[in-house]
Amino acid sequence: MPLSNVTETPELLYLLAGDPAILAEVTASIRNADLADLLNELPPAAAAKVVAGMPFDLAVQLFDEPELERRHEIFAHLDEAIASPLLEAMSADQRTELFRAMNEEERARLLPTLEPETRHALGMLLRYPPDTAGGIMTTEFVSVPASWTVGQTLRHISEVGRTKETVYAIYLLDGAERLVRVVSLRELMGVDRDQPVLHVGDRRRPVTADPLMDREQVARLISKYNLLAVPVVDTDHRVLGIVTVDDVIDALVEETTEDIQKFGGMEALEQPYLDVGFFQMLRKRGGWLSALFLGEMLTATAMGFFQDNIERAVVLAVFIPLIISSGGNSGSQASTLVIRAMAVGEVHLADWWRVVRREFASGLALGALLGAIGLARILIWQAIGNVYGDHYWLVGATVALSLIGVVLFGTIAGSMLPFALRRLGFDPASASAPFVATVVDVTGIVIYFTVASIILRGTLL
Amino acid sequence: MPLSNVTETPELLYLLAGDPAILAEVTASIRNADLADLLNELPPAAAAKVVAGMPFDLAVQLFDEPELERRHEIFAHLDEAIASPLLEAMSADQRTELFRAMNEEERARLLPTLEPETRHALGMLLRYPPDTAGGIMTTEFVSVPASWTVGQTLRHISEVGRTKETVYAIYLLDGAERLVRVVSLRELMGVDRDQPVLHVGDRRRPVTADPLMDREQVARLISKYNLLAVPVVDTDHRVLGIVTVDDVIDALVEETTEDIQKFGGMEALEQPYLDVGFFQMLRKRGGWLSALFLGEMLTATAMGFFQDNIERAVVLAVFIPLIISSGGNSGSQASTLVIRAMAVGEVHLADWWRVVRREFASGLALGALLGAIGLARILIWQAIGNVYGDHYWLVGATVALSLIGVVLFGTIAGSMLPFALRRLGFDPASASAPFVATVVDVTGIVIYFTVASIILRGTLL
Repeated sequence: MPLSNVTETPELLYLLAGDPAILAEVTASIRNADLADLLNELPPAAAAKVVAGMPFDLAVQLFDEPELERRHEIFAHLDEAIASPLLEAMSADQRTELFRAMNEEERARLLPTLEPETRHALGMLLRYPPDTAGGIMTTEFVSVPASWTVGQTLRHISEVGRTKETVYAIYLLDGAERLVRVVSLRELMGVDRDQPVLHVGDRRRPVTADPLMDREQVARLISKYNLLAVPVVDTDHRVLGIVTVDDVIDALVEETTEDIQKFGGMEALEQPYLDVGFFQMLRKRGGWLSALFLGEMLTATAMGFFQDNIERAVVLAVFIPLIISSGGNSGSQASTLVIRAMAVGEVHLADWWRVVRREFASGLALGALLGAIGLARILIWQAIGNVYGDHYWLVGATVALSLIGVVLFGTIAGSMLPFALRRLGFDPASASAPFVATVVDVTGIVIYFTVASIILRGTLL
Repeated sequence: MPLSNVTETPELLYLLAGDPAILAEVTASIRNADLADLLNELPPAAAAKVVAGMPFDLAVQLFDEPELERRHEIFAHLDEAIASPLLEAMSADQRTELFRAMNEEERARLLPTLEPETRHALGMLLRYPPDTAGGIMTTEFVSVPASWTVGQTLRHISEVGRTKETVYAIYLLDGAERLVRVVSLRELMGVDRDQPVLHVGDRRRPVTADPLMDREQVARLISKYNLLAVPVVDTDHRVLGIVTVDDVIDALVEETTEDIQKFGGMEALEQPYLDVGFFQMLRKRGGWLSALFLGEMLTATAMGFFQDNIERAVVLAVFIPLIISSGGNSGSQASTLVIRAMAVGEVHLADWWRVVRREFASGLALGALLGAIGLARILIWQAIGNVYGDHYWLVGATVALSLIGVVLFGTIAGSMLPFALRRLGFDPASASAPFVATVVDVTGIVIYFTVASIILRGTLL
């Protein structure tokens, strides 16, 4: 990190907040994202004081910075005389995100101070759920009539470019404002300026997104087609806004964090780990942990059912953790693979049968592998210390066969749970390692004691 | 997906491969990434036939498409007369990736056919590990002397733009080829063309990457500073290449997939789930599964040690799965949180003590929560059916106290394992849910029987 030397200066910034000239000088040498990091260290009231003291343009850039946390809290400490022009000058997508975080009271205070046009755009963007294309798009894009020349278009970009999120994709519209084609600034460079803009570049139908498309899917479009921005169009093919690649990276990282946390067996935190309060953390973890615990209680019920067997052959109890954990581990592998393959679009609901077949074969092979290791372990221990008595071969067979059954079941259950959850409208990532393990543990006990009662009947049982 | 109608046409493409005119017409209406998807469905030999029949420019674009899989296998079926010009025309980063995938024989066949300059650039890029900035960068960027005017720079971009990965970031170099500043094409639009280019735009020191910087960290730089590309510089500040935002998205998705698969308790697949062969899949899963199984065998050893206790109080065996799984679940939550927080740079090695303190408190609270639920369950079952005998209060206390101990231990172990692994130079993502569960299971058994032998001594034991 080239700027590690400035990370100790929040106090400095704080002290400088009184003198606009010095503050302006200091902030001019720091990148916006780093300045945002510094402001994140200050209490909102102090951050508001710093913001009020800095050049207006810089303040706008800072509030357009997704790195800046608690923007709505800082805003609550800003006078309307500063807050309103800031809101007007911010980019539409960041302004929308800021408004989403505000409480009713704050919204009511600031909304009437905005220009009618800004208010209208804000209202439109707020209508879309925050995890959709419409919810993360911005309305500041460059569009020109499809009838223009290259020269007209380049002149237009020079004039309006500063106020747009990106000038590298230009949207060509017909008379009814419908999207005809997208042309890149790169394609416009170095062609004859008198040429119609419609004659330049890629003639293929542009990639577009629906406003209600999931933001993960938008990310996949941008990544697949190597785009810098994707236009969001309504059913009449009118451009509502654009989603840019930097928004998509942020969305991708956030979605992945949520998926991973769900996969770890908890609710997604929605905030950086170290910023989450103690009680919120307990709530996010305690809920799932209790639910899993209640599910896992079925193991005690199942074990109670086989208590007589344990009493007759205590040696059986010794292998319970080994056997049920093997089911959990193989289930965790299978569910991880399927959840991730679904998230990146490699596997779809319709592929479930292909996955079952694959996982059946894998489960059988992996179960046989662990069964062989388990049997070897028992035979070796027996040879060394005669710990399993006369019927050690039968005990070994019970453990080995149970392992095959449990691993096979774990693999199938782990791979199918994400499909079942998605089919029912839930997030497949909730088929977490602990969830799968819980489902598999109970079944593992039943499989183990069933195999035992068949093999050991008349000898140990 | 707007192109779902063409996904059934691989056979069509195959058949058309003979007639260049028709093939060219068909492919002109399909986007490159979709065309790559179609080629992915064909055997490499057939794909090579299609490639040989298409317009050269399109073939180049296709091979520059990361969506196109098994590029090196397709190349093996191409004649040098086509393969060499293709390699020459490909972008440097994709060419490097292609060469990395080739075997020695293929490399030896194709290397001598390349221009000395291309061979030199390739050799330079191949020297960097594939998961570093140097390994994913491209050498095709736009650089101009810092002494030029805006007009000169724009003219240069028009002339050379077509052959560059991006024209939107322009690197200004001094007389010794060292990076002075980065200016964006956007900043050059609409300013006086006679102005020195050095007077335009952001005066702050450009963000740069070291060639050996981890690609995940490069992704974080690009995401944090909202860049379209980051220059990779050597110790003298000479630009070696650039990493563009689209490469970074691909890298980010790949790295996350690897992390998630490791976290599921297996080796990273490195290929899409459905494309991995059966035996490769077994190898990736069987290794970890066997290792975990060997580790989990310690539970059988531990249980053997307490076999006498089980014989005297079979009721104890009933709660073993419940208690050890609670440790595994809470450990999985804690390790997930820490692994992800490390991956996105929220938590660093130095934060370990802060994390321990947080997790100690969380573990205690969560353990108390589960302990209370466990105790309630035992008291309710006892009231209904007298299943736990006269000493049910002592059994309940044993279970509740063990849960507090096991959950606390699971939480601490789960949160500290990623730190330990990183400290030792391993990937923290290997502190997978199954790995943590395995570590915690053995300890859980020891904690449980220790608590039991203290509380139940003189009554059940």
